[in-house]
Amino acid sequence: MNKRLFFLLIGASVVLAAFSHYFLQNEIIRFITASLAIIFLAAWLGKATESVAHYAGNRIGGFLNATFGNAAELIIAFFLVKEGNFDMVKASITGSIIGNVLLVLGLSVLFGGLKFKEQKFNGRLAGYNASLMTLGVVALFIPAVFLGELPLERIQTLSIVIAVILIIAYVLWLIFSLVTHKEFLADTEQEEGEPLWSKGVSIIMLIVATVFVAVVSEWLVHSVEIVSHTLGWSELFVGGFVIAIIGNAAEHSAAVLLAMKNKIGAAVEIAIGSSLQIALFVAPTLVLVSLLFEHPMNIVFSVFELAAIAVGTLIAISISRDGATNWFEGVLLLSVYIIIGTAFYFV
Amino acid sequence: MNKRLFFLLIGASVVLAAFSHYFLQNEIIRFITASLAIIFLAAWLGKATESVAHYAGNRIGGFLNATFGNAAELIIAFFLVKEGNFDMVKASITGSIIGNVLLVLGLSVLFGGLKFKEQKFNGRLAGYNASLMTLGVVALFIPAVFLGELPLERIQTLSIVIAVILIIAYVLWLIFSLVTHKEFLADTEQEEGEPLWSKGVSIIMLIVATVFVAVVSEWLVHSVEIVSHTLGWSELFVGGFVIAIIGNAAEHSAAVLLAMKNKIGAAVEIAIGSSLQIALFVAPTLVLVSLLFEHPMNIVFSVFELAAIAVGTLIAISISRDGATNWFEGVLLLSVYIIIGTAFYFV
Amino acid sequence: MNKRLFFLLIGASVVLAAFSHYFLQNEIIRFITASLAIIFLAAWLGKATESVAHYAGNRIGGFLNATFGNAAELIIAFFLVKEGNFDMVKASITGSIIGNVLLVLGLSVLFGGLKFKEQKFNGRLAGYNASLMTLGVVALFIPAVFLGELPLERIQTLSIVIAVILIIAYVLWLIFSLVTHKEFLADTEQEEGEPLWSKGVSIIMLIVATVFVAVVSEWLVHSVEIVSHTLGWSELFVGGFVIAIIGNAAEHSAAVLLAMKNKIGAAVEIAIGSSLQIALFVAPTLVLVSLLFEHPMNIVFSVFELAAIAVGTLIAISISRDGATNWFEGVLLLSVYIIIGTAFYFV
Repeated sequence: MNKRLFFLLIGASVVLAAFSHYFLQNEIIRFITASLAIIFLAAWLGKATESVAHYAGNRIGGFLNATFGNAAELIIAFFLVKEGNFDMVKASITGSIIGNVLLVLGLSVLFGGLKFKEQKFNGRLAGYNASLMTLGVVALFIPAVFLGELPLERIQTLSIVIAVILIIAYVLWLIFSLVTHKEFLADTEQEEGEPLWSKGVSIIMLIVATVFVAVVSEWLVHSVEIVSHTLGWSELFVGGFVIAIIGNAAEHSAAVLLAMKNKIGAAVEIAIGSSLQIALFVAPTLVLVSLLFEHPMNIVFSVFELAAIAVGTLIAISISRDGATNWFEGVLLLSVYIIIGTAFYFV
Repeated sequence: MNKRLFFLLIGASVVLAAFSHYFLQNEIIRFITASLAIIFLAAWLGKATESVAHYAGNRIGGFLNATFGNAAELIIAFFLVKEGNFDMVKASITGSIIGNVLLVLGLSVLFGGLKFKEQKFNGRLAGYNASLMTLGVVALFIPAVFLGELPLERIQTLSIVIAVILIIAYVLWLIFSLVTHKEFLADTEQEEGEPLWSKGVSIIMLIVATVFVAVVSEWLVHSVEIVSHTLGWSELFVGGFVIAIIGNAAEHSAAVLLAMKNKIGAAVEIAIGSSLQIALFVAPTLVLVSLLFEHPMNIVFSVFELAAIAVGTLIAISISRDGATNWFEGVLLLSVYIIIGTAFYFV
Repeated sequence: MNKRLFFLLIGASVVLAAFSHYFLQNEIIRFITASLAIIFLAAWLGKATESVAHYAGNRIGGFLNATFGNAAELIIAFFLVKEGNFDMVKASITGSIIGNVLLVLGLSVLFGGLKFKEQKFNGRLAGYNASLMTLGVVALFIPAVFLGELPLERIQTLSIVIAVILIIAYVLWLIFSLVTHKEFLADTEQEEGEPLWSKGVSIIMLIVATVFVAVVSEWLVHSVEIVSHTLGWSELFVGGFVIAIIGNAAEHSAAVLLAMKNKIGAAVEIAIGSSLQIALFVAPTLVLVSLLFEHPMNIVFSVFELAAIAVGTLIAISISRDGATNWFEGVLLLSVYIIIGTAFYFV
């Protein structure tokens, strides 16, 4: 696409969303304009990520994308925690995890697979991701199992201990994957083509685009809540699906674009890396941050949320284990996503 | 075995079973004669399948066998649904799934393994089967988790949505495995020996044998119910074990015969392909078909049934993952089958 | 270390522990002296095992170690069963399983991984271990699922049937791994260095060290119970963590020593082999042995214990599947161990 036209569309959509947000009262219009802006901003973010990925290698690029993609969610969740709306926080954490491992990964694998017969990536990385996701599921599962037996204050202490362990494990994972065993996890794919921008410009683009995505995401989330209340959707469905889908739009487009360029390794890294970061870093950070406020948040998720996370992780691990993907595996991931989405909708 | 003697035995056993069914009142005799007929018919079906498999390649042969093997069960379940005996339908679906992944696969692997030190098959296929079975388990598991929270009518709608998704996924799987990625899943084994009949005769044999199996299976199921009531067996045990074992006798003998000829790939395809077809096609079809009758059937299985399916699938995936089998893996599968069977018996 | 000094330290620590046990009343001193003796005895056992492993091959060495390591636990559990303290027996069985698959394996992998970038072992063995552990989990899981529905006497009968199946499966596993498919599971690592003692002396050392460990373990367990009651620890925590950690000290040091000598295959064999033996042999044997006493013990574990065993097995399988380990995988195993330990502590 023409570069100038691209930036013109982004600018126009953001101005339109800002105008609606500050001057219009109609929530439907606010919702539509913010969604539109997010779509273009996410495309921009995707391009910037791809360009940075070119310079940094697929994996670091994927890691950066996962970080910036989740920055928006972390900010939104922070304000929800401050307001004490813990159910919505947990629903959106659940939604982000399954949105990444099922929807983002599913779409990437499906569209990549429609273009290429089989796409390969570093299977060793898939193994580590599987073990880390298992740790995340275990960490969320244990307090829920013990909930019935323990008094609330002990659940709170247990939550803090688990949150600290998860953050330590995540930091050690970064040391492992970026320092001590960097070359183990390097992607075997070859870089191809020319990036859109120079290294410095790419990084600036990535940062600026992320900031815009975060700002507009917040407008969007605000209006989507009102819109969804009007439509009578459950909190679990709104937090777990509507917010998560829109909040992860950046990852969606970036991952799918990479998959369609046969960089499935980077797409997998975005999808699974992002959900790992949410389970092992964002969720425990929110538990610890909540200690600063009047009502601390525990780490106990509902049975529905745990079932969704466990089931999503299980099928993603089953599919990614062999380090190769094809269109049918995308179908499987999306099938599970739709089944869980339908169940959440009906609650 | 002498061909003429073989057909003589089949003919005699079927005539005997038919005579008992139409003219005798003693259920024990009916049961024994029908069982005898099924054993010979199943052997015939095994021979015919093997012969067709020779012409069609192991995988297609296995697929055909799984289809015809389940035709009998689909017919039986259809009448049970019509009568509104949903508990028995679900117990027999459960029994067919675990009967295939544990008993049929276990016997094949055990007997094949006693003859050959190690038997190999297409490990890639095992990976897909694992992912598909996981989808099946998830699809049956989700509505059960949400059951307590939802009103009955919503469970019904959720069941229909899940049934449609499963059938779509199964059709896409057939497109994937038989059209777009056919060569990926082809078995690496070499064909050996001469088939018993020509291609055309083999196909006719397969069809005719299947029809006979279906007819006699129904007689058998009829008498086994009365016999089991006399013996005081629980519905879960009768549906899940007695019916399932007899209804899958065809797969048993065919799969074990193939395994003992070192065609373990075809045996695995029969066992796992058959259980996939039941979970992803037969079960959802029965849910949709039930809409035609007064009382529609939902897709909610009992905790025992889900535990049995999940556990059976888990151990089968664990064992088949490496694309190689030996006698001890057969022991493991059969151990789990006996444990579940004992538990079902005591309920 | 100087051989003479080594034996002097062992002798001194055992004499000190014996003196405290028979002549002192202070439980804290008894506890400290017994712990000290165990540490030296375990080091001795480790040296002896290593030496025997040199002659017998890593796998048989690991198997012997696992057997002798669990002899102590079997004796302790026997007396607990006799006294009818079933909750403590089950807690210590749970603790031994997760202590082996999480703590022993975690420390071995972590310390081995800090010394060597990547350590490899026979991946095929890992696959069998995974399937066997799955059988163990299934066997403990099934009766718990059915518990609510069944009368107590039927649970008892079900327990006996499951116990017999597990023991048969374990015996067949020994035949498989030591007789019919011995060479399949042989470790690919090369032996290095000279053993400390001759073959005969090594075996005698192994036996004598094991006897001493068992005797002192019992003193230790006796005093630790009183110490822990003074400190207000829960039965689940004492049985599942304190007893299990001390009772498995022998495996700890032996496995970690082997891992640090790059014999990770033997370390994995000790850790997983030991937990397999507890799940498939020690636990069912105790169920059968309990029939000799007034109150028979069933095989129904609590939800917490099952969750701990399932979760520990899951992460251990996930990590060992690829037949290679590194320090971060040790971190993951230990993280899960600490999370479960914290939860048990708070109950």
